[in-house]
Amino acid sequence: MDDRTHVVIVGAGFAGLDCARALAGAPIDVTVIDRNNFNTFQPLLYQVATSGLAASDVSYPVRGLFHDAPNVAFRQGTVHGVDWDTRTLLLHGQDPMPFDRLVVAAGAVTNYFGVEGAERHAFPLYGLTDAIALRNHVLRQFEATEAHPELVDEGALTFVVVGGGPTGVETAGALTELFDMVLTKDFPRLDIALARVVLVEMSDTVLGPFSARARHYAAHQLRQRGISLRLAERVVRVDGTGVELASGERIATRTLVWAAGVRANPLAADLGLPQVGGGRIPVGPDLRVEGHDGVFAVGDVAAIGAGGSDDLLPQLAPVAKQSGTYVGRLLRDEVEEPGVARTRPFRYRDKGTMATIGRRAAVADLPLRLRLTGTPAWVTWLFLHLMFLVGFRNRITVFVNWAWSYLTYDRGPRLIVDGDDGAHRSGDADGHDDGG
Amino acid sequence: MDDRTHVVIVGAGFAGLDCARALAGAPIDVTVIDRNNFNTFQPLLYQVATSGLAASDVSYPVRGLFHDAPNVAFRQGTVHGVDWDTRTLLLHGQDPMPFDRLVVAAGAVTNYFGVEGAERHAFPLYGLTDAIALRNHVLRQFEATEAHPELVDEGALTFVVVGGGPTGVETAGALTELFDMVLTKDFPRLDIALARVVLVEMSDTVLGPFSARARHYAAHQLRQRGISLRLAERVVRVDGTGVELASGERIATRTLVWAAGVRANPLAADLGLPQVGGGRIPVGPDLRVEGHDGVFAVGDVAAIGAGGSDDLLPQLAPVAKQSGTYVGRLLRDEVEEPGVARTRPFRYRDKGTMATIGRRAAVADLPLRLRLTGTPAWVTWLFLHLMFLVGFRNRITVFVNWAWSYLTYDRGPRLIVDGDDGAHRSGDADGHDDGG
Repeated sequence: MDDRTHVVIVGAGFAGLDCARALAGAPIDVTVIDRNNFNTFQPLLYQVATSGLAASDVSYPVRGLFHDAPNVAFRQGTVHGVDWDTRTLLLHGQDPMPFDRLVVAAGAVTNYFGVEGAERHAFPLYGLTDAIALRNHVLRQFEATEAHPELVDEGALTFVVVGGGPTGVETAGALTELFDMVLTKDFPRLDIALARVVLVEMSDTVLGPFSARARHYAAHQLRQRGISLRLAERVVRVDGTGVELASGERIATRTLVWAAGVRANPLAADLGLPQVGGGRIPVGPDLRVEGHDGVFAVGDVAAIGAGGSDDLLPQLAPVAKQSGTYVGRLLRDEVEEPGVARTRPFRYRDKGTMATIGRRAAVADLPLRLRLTGTPAWVTWLFLHLMFLVGFRNRITVFVNWAWSYLTYDRGPRLIVDGDDGAHRSGDADGHDDGG
Repeated sequence: MDDRTHVVIVGAGFAGLDCARALAGAPIDVTVIDRNNFNTFQPLLYQVATSGLAASDVSYPVRGLFHDAPNVAFRQGTVHGVDWDTRTLLLHGQDPMPFDRLVVAAGAVTNYFGVEGAERHAFPLYGLTDAIALRNHVLRQFEATEAHPELVDEGALTFVVVGGGPTGVETAGALTELFDMVLTKDFPRLDIALARVVLVEMSDTVLGPFSARARHYAAHQLRQRGISLRLAERVVRVDGTGVELASGERIATRTLVWAAGVRANPLAADLGLPQVGGGRIPVGPDLRVEGHDGVFAVGDVAAIGAGGSDDLLPQLAPVAKQSGTYVGRLLRDEVEEPGVARTRPFRYRDKGTMATIGRRAAVADLPLRLRLTGTPAWVTWLFLHLMFLVGFRNRITVFVNWAWSYLTYDRGPRLIVDGDDGAHRSGDADGHDDGG
């Protein structure tokens, strides 16, 4: 082992895993480190939060991915620093881990932009435990309101989502569907029409980066489903009883879903790496971190240039996957063809973006200026998400769940798994209730 | 509503739900109360604990069961007492709930029999959160041992199961299978042969109430799978580093699975009802609680006579289901045929018992003295458990999971969902980490 290059990948998200996959079978020792022993398929987290899928449907044990790749090891642990002199990573409660090459793929954390009370009271939707905490919380509001109908006036059935990007739009749409199709049957003694969703977006449109057609379709569909759109509006304060908007309006609510943005994982700072906007690590055209030999950053934690301009690539799954694969191949080439310098810079191939509002209602901006809305976009969305889900078994159970929901208008695991409702904080390694 | 009889059922386990089912559609108002909003299919909890099934596969939202029964309501809440004068149940944080008839179906809790350290250090396996806590803990031992191989000597890979009944046997067998078929591939750098399971049973045989053939087959299969059987042995002390047996032997371990027995839910005491051995509520031949008009006890919380002798029926799922259905029908007859006194006493129909040790290895003692072992018993077990699972969707996903595991020797959701490993206590309403 000792004379083989040791690549350490921090983070088992899209970027880290695709990097490791590209290195599977190479004459290189690879260790993937993550604080969780599973990978989370983040694009479907909102379905866990809205009782559409089980937690296990969107999570896959990392070790299971590398049964056939003896050169790829996994280590569950939390990195808290680095010793650049000895080139070793420092882990909580574990021996330091030496590396020859380091790939930082630590992803992002929720960005509350300093909004007062948000860190304490808002529900993020970035990790698996976030999704489960939100699911528990939403269902608890209905249980509580059935027992105490006067809670409606305190906003128990008012759900505010902040952020009009895909996550916010999808969460708002899925919440409405959960209420109208399932909870209306679960709670026949409650007037479900009292449950409402408010979507707050800072700009004057939802799905900002999408085509005009997609934006208009999405806004129309959201409104048609009874969602109040507050465009060109911001949340300035949140507490346990409501949110306050920049316009001065106050909405009584116990639920603020925070889909307003992310910033790079603070690990970038812990490692003493340079940082630019949003805490992201600036990288060169081949995703190397300048001034640190053999260190790369990929995915959400990296500030990857869009090429040609000063723009950065967005923090999206496809960028993460492609950048991870790129670095994996680069490191592989380094070892397998040591003389040949790899000079082709990373180039992102934009295969389009999609978002689902609900049953047979989605938008998809695809390559070749193909703009789909409605059922065709929805079917495309379903197909692609099933295809990209990790693990054949996950695909089957997700397919069963989706088919069931579509045919019966019923939903899956709307379980409130006990745990402290107050402890719904996201973050890196704190205690969390969880279920599903 | 006011002139209709109001039946309150405390507990949404097998007994409570089958009671409610028998009352569905009757001219009676029914309220089912449970501290969880879901029913747990307890016979398969050991598969959740051993990463075979997801938590959502063995849980079903109670409200979803009664969409077509407008007379059956659900209330998530915890009962802490009763006012017999006003015939109202007292709930934590909710208005008291009046009842005309009360069915106590609160089930059981783990019985530690006063063994020193057990309540604090042992892992029970009675509720969903127990199963998830055990799963997390087991997987964490392997992650920790890979990082710190010296932990093997401290017993990190030694798993002690106490109790040789079906739960203990099934858990021991499933743990071995998890190690030999899955974790050996997940942890190629660990010598999985170091992982061992010890099954401690007080009597001189496993599966005591089963036929001799079943007992011998089970003991043979367990031993063949490398499980150490300690028969006629007891655990007398447990702490964070090991267990001490009555013989004086000390086994270094961090994991003691407590499958040694249950006692009635302490709610029996909170309600001031009479109690006999194990805290169970004595009932008459028609499952009424003596001295309390219109109060019934069913399932694990009840001491139901076996008829003809002083023996009590065992605390098993079939007894719970049948006793629940009996009381449901009795209450229905009371209202639908008010003049006709129902006099036929409850009679338990023993349809046999089963236990699975592993792949194609099970025992089934069926009616007509049909004794199955091996593959026939295993297929019977699979079929009956699928049939009795609540919810068609659960059946499909469980079937997919089982078929997948059988064909690929792989397992499902071996996720460590974060949470405080120390907080693995069972019990009634405490905070819990959970996952799956």
